[in-house]
Amino acid sequence: MIGVFDSGLGGLTVVKELLLKVKGYKIVYFGDTARTPYGTKSPETVTRYAVENTRFLLKLGAKIIVVACHTASSTAMPVLKQTFPEIPFFEVVTPSMEKALRLTKSKKIGLIGTRTTVESRVYDRLFAEKDPEIKLYSNPAPLLVPLIEEGWLKKPETRRIVKKYLIPLKMRGIDTLILGCTHYPIIKKLIQEKAGKRIKLVDPSEEVASNVANFIEEHPEVKTTLETNGLEIFVSDLTAYFGKIAEMFLGRKVELKKVSIEEMVNF
Amino acid sequence: MIGVFDSGLGGLTVVKELLLKVKGYKIVYFGDTARTPYGTKSPETVTRYAVENTRFLLKLGAKIIVVACHTASSTAMPVLKQTFPEIPFFEVVTPSMEKALRLTKSKKIGLIGTRTTVESRVYDRLFAEKDPEIKLYSNPAPLLVPLIEEGWLKKPETRRIVKKYLIPLKMRGIDTLILGCTHYPIIKKLIQEKAGKRIKLVDPSEEVASNVANFIEEHPEVKTTLETNGLEIFVSDLTAYFGKIAEMFLGRKVELKKVSIEEMVNF
Repeated sequence: MIGVFDSGLGGLTVVKELLLKVKGYKIVYFGDTARTPYGTKSPETVTRYAVENTRFLLKLGAKIIVVACHTASSTAMPVLKQTFPEIPFFEVVTPSMEKALRLTKSKKIGLIGTRTTVESRVYDRLFAEKDPEIKLYSNPAPLLVPLIEEGWLKKPETRRIVKKYLIPLKMRGIDTLILGCTHYPIIKKLIQEKAGKRIKLVDPSEEVASNVANFIEEHPEVKTTLETNGLEIFVSDLTAYFGKIAEMFLGRKVELKKVSIEEMVNF
Repeated sequence: MIGVFDSGLGGLTVVKELLLKVKGYKIVYFGDTARTPYGTKSPETVTRYAVENTRFLLKLGAKIIVVACHTASSTAMPVLKQTFPEIPFFEVVTPSMEKALRLTKSKKIGLIGTRTTVESRVYDRLFAEKDPEIKLYSNPAPLLVPLIEEGWLKKPETRRIVKKYLIPLKMRGIDTLILGCTHYPIIKKLIQEKAGKRIKLVDPSEEVASNVANFIEEHPEVKTTLETNGLEIFVSDLTAYFGKIAEMFLGRKVELKKVSIEEMVNF
């Protein structure tokens, strides 16, 4: 079984890509909707939540963990790998960084994400290690998550706010833009329109799903331990509205199962 | 000591009013920033958090509890009163309802708030009990909290979104508008501008602070147990940005003290 977690339901854009690229294996998703959002919380808090979420998915039988949350990917990976050294982890930051490196010609790359993701400076560090000539220009875009979760996908307010967030990046002459949050692929067309044709977008959901697919093909010893087929979605809090949001991200109707934080932590 | 809690820092607008109207008593505030927002979470989850927050403030010495959070005021009061029967509780819903009843002439009242507050229908029930002729028109305004927390208090996007939320209420001919979230007083001027002069605003922070002041004067047996002076602010998560938000709500610089959920629950 492939375990996937996110602070909320945005990580379902990763599940959607996994269902396309990693066909035939069981996926269990945990959306931490009782403690969402992670993007405004401190790195210590986010790391503790990430460890609890991982432990829950492992107890359910996960053999691979996909951290489908940029905030957790930016802050929690060292502790996760140290706490669960035998588990293959995939996160959403490195694959986007590598894809952007392959795409850019001007070596000027843009990034939008939550405040915590941008302020973690994880992309800055990764680019500096890989290619010191890369110039990364970041802009926190904290209103996009609430706008998307409201379903305001095409409203004029959303269009204006996207434009506003992109202006300082475009002024720097970027030719590649990393969507640094799993919510953003939902408004990819709008972001592309406001960014202009000259700028190539990097969609983290597509990149991480490709990496997981490659890993499984290259590791038959893991492949044989994965259960086949099925998708289960757990959330730590459930309201009527979450069903609609999940459907928006996954592109189809889906059942959400509630597991409280207490049940999850003591599972 | 007067204990005040909210899901985040918005309840500091209530503290600001308490400092004006209830001079001379110690106030301890708990902002549950690790689990914020409550406005998108289920009533059961919000109620459990409210009980934990209250217990923490009581252990710190609170003799009066102010629930400075509309979502908790809308959903958690029956359980809070049952769990702590000896404690005087103040919440932000009833005082606004009573003020609106005194203000309205057309008997058409508007309400904006988070999705959970509006969907709880607590205002509808309260008005139906007090005056069945009152027509309450509600519109969830979920983007206002993130816009305010971003400090986008006067940006054109915020102005447009406020206008959009108010249009359906104005079309109904309301003459009174309840600000059903402790964040909203921060943009009261903008809301008044978009509502128009004909509509009177009800600010929950002012109303609850007046009620607490009256209660203390009328209950000398409680008054004598209150410690004097001082303001302490605890938060369950702390980032550099929270200091700025707290200053915006309180109108002055303030020190935030971190207490983790574990420390708080096991205090």
